[in-house]
Amino acid sequence: VAANLDKIFKPASIAMVGASNVRAKWGSFLLLNLMAGGYPRENIYPINPREKEIHTLPAYPSLSALPVVPELAIITTQAAAVPSILEECGNLGVKDVVVISSNFSEVGEDGAGLEKELVEVARKHELRLVGPNTMGIVNAERKLFAVGAPIQLHPGKISFVSQSGNVGANMLGWTMNQGIGFAKFVGSGNEAILKAEDYIEYFGQDPETALILAYLEGVENGRRFMDIVSRTAAEKPVIVLKSGRTEAGGKAAMSHTGSLAGADEIYDAAFRQAGAIRADTSQDMLDLAKSFERLPLPVGDRVGVVTLGGGWGVLATDALAPVGLHLAELDDKVMRVCNELLPAFWSHGNPIDLVGNIYMDTHIAILEAMASSPQVDAIIALGSLGTGTIIGLTVLVSHRLIMEMSEDAMKGFFTELKDRNLNFLRKAKELMRTYQKPIIFVEMQFIGDESLRDLEAGEVAIFTAPEKAAVILAKMLQYGRYRDKVRNSPQ
Amino acid sequence: VAANLDKIFKPASIAMVGASNVRAKWGSFLLLNLMAGGYPRENIYPINPREKEIHTLPAYPSLSALPVVPELAIITTQAAAVPSILEECGNLGVKDVVVISSNFSEVGEDGAGLEKELVEVARKHELRLVGPNTMGIVNAERKLFAVGAPIQLHPGKISFVSQSGNVGANMLGWTMNQGIGFAKFVGSGNEAILKAEDYIEYFGQDPETALILAYLEGVENGRRFMDIVSRTAAEKPVIVLKSGRTEAGGKAAMSHTGSLAGADEIYDAAFRQAGAIRADTSQDMLDLAKSFERLPLPVGDRVGVVTLGGGWGVLATDALAPVGLHLAELDDKVMRVCNELLPAFWSHGNPIDLVGNIYMDTHIAILEAMASSPQVDAIIALGSLGTGTIIGLTVLVSHRLIMEMSEDAMKGFFTELKDRNLNFLRKAKELMRTYQKPIIFVEMQFIGDESLRDLEAGEVAIFTAPEKAAVILAKMLQYGRYRDKVRNSPQ
Repeated sequence: VAANLDKIFKPASIAMVGASNVRAKWGSFLLLNLMAGGYPRENIYPINPREKEIHTLPAYPSLSALPVVPELAIITTQAAAVPSILEECGNLGVKDVVVISSNFSEVGEDGAGLEKELVEVARKHELRLVGPNTMGIVNAERKLFAVGAPIQLHPGKISFVSQSGNVGANMLGWTMNQGIGFAKFVGSGNEAILKAEDYIEYFGQDPETALILAYLEGVENGRRFMDIVSRTAAEKPVIVLKSGRTEAGGKAAMSHTGSLAGADEIYDAAFRQAGAIRADTSQDMLDLAKSFERLPLPVGDRVGVVTLGGGWGVLATDALAPVGLHLAELDDKVMRVCNELLPAFWSHGNPIDLVGNIYMDTHIAILEAMASSPQVDAIIALGSLGTGTIIGLTVLVSHRLIMEMSEDAMKGFFTELKDRNLNFLRKAKELMRTYQKPIIFVEMQFIGDESLRDLEAGEVAIFTAPEKAAVILAKMLQYGRYRDKVRNSPQ
Repeated sequence: VAANLDKIFKPASIAMVGASNVRAKWGSFLLLNLMAGGYPRENIYPINPREKEIHTLPAYPSLSALPVVPELAIITTQAAAVPSILEECGNLGVKDVVVISSNFSEVGEDGAGLEKELVEVARKHELRLVGPNTMGIVNAERKLFAVGAPIQLHPGKISFVSQSGNVGANMLGWTMNQGIGFAKFVGSGNEAILKAEDYIEYFGQDPETALILAYLEGVENGRRFMDIVSRTAAEKPVIVLKSGRTEAGGKAAMSHTGSLAGADEIYDAAFRQAGAIRADTSQDMLDLAKSFERLPLPVGDRVGVVTLGGGWGVLATDALAPVGLHLAELDDKVMRVCNELLPAFWSHGNPIDLVGNIYMDTHIAILEAMASSPQVDAIIALGSLGTGTIIGLTVLVSHRLIMEMSEDAMKGFFTELKDRNLNFLRKAKELMRTYQKPIIFVEMQFIGDESLRDLEAGEVAIFTAPEKAAVILAKMLQYGRYRDKVRNSPQ
């Protein structure tokens, strides 16, 4: 059975062992982040024998001196002090611990000796222990931001385990600007007790998690890991970014030999077999996360492409074959709708070239014809949102030169343009819901990142390159097929 | 010899044949864009027999009625009228023409017949003709924005020919938010007279162009194209995005057979031999353009990696081998500098892990040691800029909770943080200049796109994924090696 990590991610009270008023210390900014994030202050207990008060909260000399038994202890002391603190935790019945402190196995032999001690104490008391040398944990919904970086995530349905605190924190920081929401995060640190796969298993059973991300550098027990992942992926997508491809040979060796490349192929095959979706880069992982969270899975490989102009359609078409997708055949109904709405010289095939048509009703009608076609499994829509901006800038230009339009009228006009896009996206979302097919939007023209995020509103996925849309659809299809295969096979 | 296209890109006067007051027409918004872009109004001559004035400018009934012979004619009339207008151009001595009008060969047989007529007239009068069916032309420095999209580019040293007006306009529109500057743009349209390679050749000899971009769907005369590209690439980088991989078989065939994939490999080999750098996606092309424009070329494949934390270093290292780069060996001097500035447990090798060090002087000192090392050809710097934001957000958090700081003091503090980053980048630019080695910055954490663009200030390249930095360095090296080989070979 999976370790129950509820008290780690949903503690009713937290002891901060090693809390500090010295601003440069982890014991200080971790506590500040936790407070700033909105975790109830009355349930935070700073522990420090030399202070009466830490950052406005009353401090206690030791765990034993607390008025309650805290559900979680977060430790930021010197490494050498950690084993005895764990002993105290065990004796008091505090079974859940996050060890932020570093200088364990990651710094060489001395540290490894100390980590062995830590493991012995933790095993003796059956502690559920995160770390050591971890960046910390997050539960966005519960306003639990016990991390060593000033991260305040939007609540969402994605949970993320990272074997590098640094990579994890960077990726999370990035999502703060990207409108991507998270349920839970954990930096697994040195994984002395709890391993990456334990968190994956927990997230798999967590009702607040719909989608799991894992940044991995290496896996100790490959069989256990793959076993957990394959069971988890039968229920929820597991997206993996795997680096340290050559950990067997170490970093130095890696740069001088190509011979270890095979190790990565083995990982690749194992991930595929276990139903994990592999991201190629950190940015890809976030793009995949967003898409898996927001869009229905495609059930086949036939893609409809609708484009404001021919060139983008060609780029999108080119991107399909290399990832195993292909252009859908247009059925009679789609042809009829297009014949009715488009000029006679329209492309008469897929991609459907709207040749600059700026009427959103036409865009929607053609998207609906595509979405309702039994021959189409997924749609890439190129340039629809840009039409509003084209109109807007053209009017703006002519206004500056010629037209008489008051500031108010101008503002109203641009509000209308934004509404027009939001209205289009609302209808597109309905199509996705109704027909349960993904529509990915691609926009490059004249739209800054900020406004793309505004338009997405956490509910659709807009990218800036058609190639990206194809890769994402292919990986969603790969996952859907895995899930169906597992679900339909006799247990 | 190359066609002299100076009058197309630097016309002293322009006749707009087909100019219109009807706002939805190309003859209207093309003129509006041209005026809005700042091209001198007194040198624009709208031609329309049914109007006295168009968008505040006096209109003329025909080219022959003009008080001057314009240097360039831009035609937006119905297709059928174009051949006779070209005849008039030829008779008047107007040798340079941009045919925006569409409905030529791109719409089938009737249009193809008309295009044949157009070609005959153009050849008879030896016209230099852009199009037909082109998005238009841009010369940012001269404020010439004769394009059918509301694009106002920053002036710069990049020139761009696109076989799709749609793709070209989208990419240009995107750069308006990205701080990338352009010298010239042309949509080559149907290429009835002037071909993509003619523009490449012209850009190659254009002193205002340092770098050439080409979006290609197909090339008619492969030998001539490759010949021109290889001569041009000996002087300036030529970055190519090639789509329509299977044009031989047409779109429909493409989606059902894999047999034509080889055609793309032939293109790939030809581009490589001709020294053209191939971009994988539209976004990649812009990322490459930015990097080639701003950074010195690496002279070898040994990369130094400096990282704020270990995980990013691993991702960066992983990204090197697949693109033919490898980690540089650190020489004694670099080791000495690191031993002096970093804690004893630093990585003692490349990547250099700064383990969270937030002192920018340390970052610069280590970058300088790397840049000055004869064993390092290029540098990837991960996370340096983020340190300021980490400090900033941490202070902001603690301020909200505890500290007493006036609004003014707070503002001053954040100005200081930005100055800190700008100061760091200024020093890094000096290092690039002094040692003539590229440094690519990678930042993901807490930095929105807007502020990345601010920090770049058009002079450095900051990306959000280490994998991107590796791909770019590899392509810069590929180009540098081509150029050196060509320059060093006896003619």
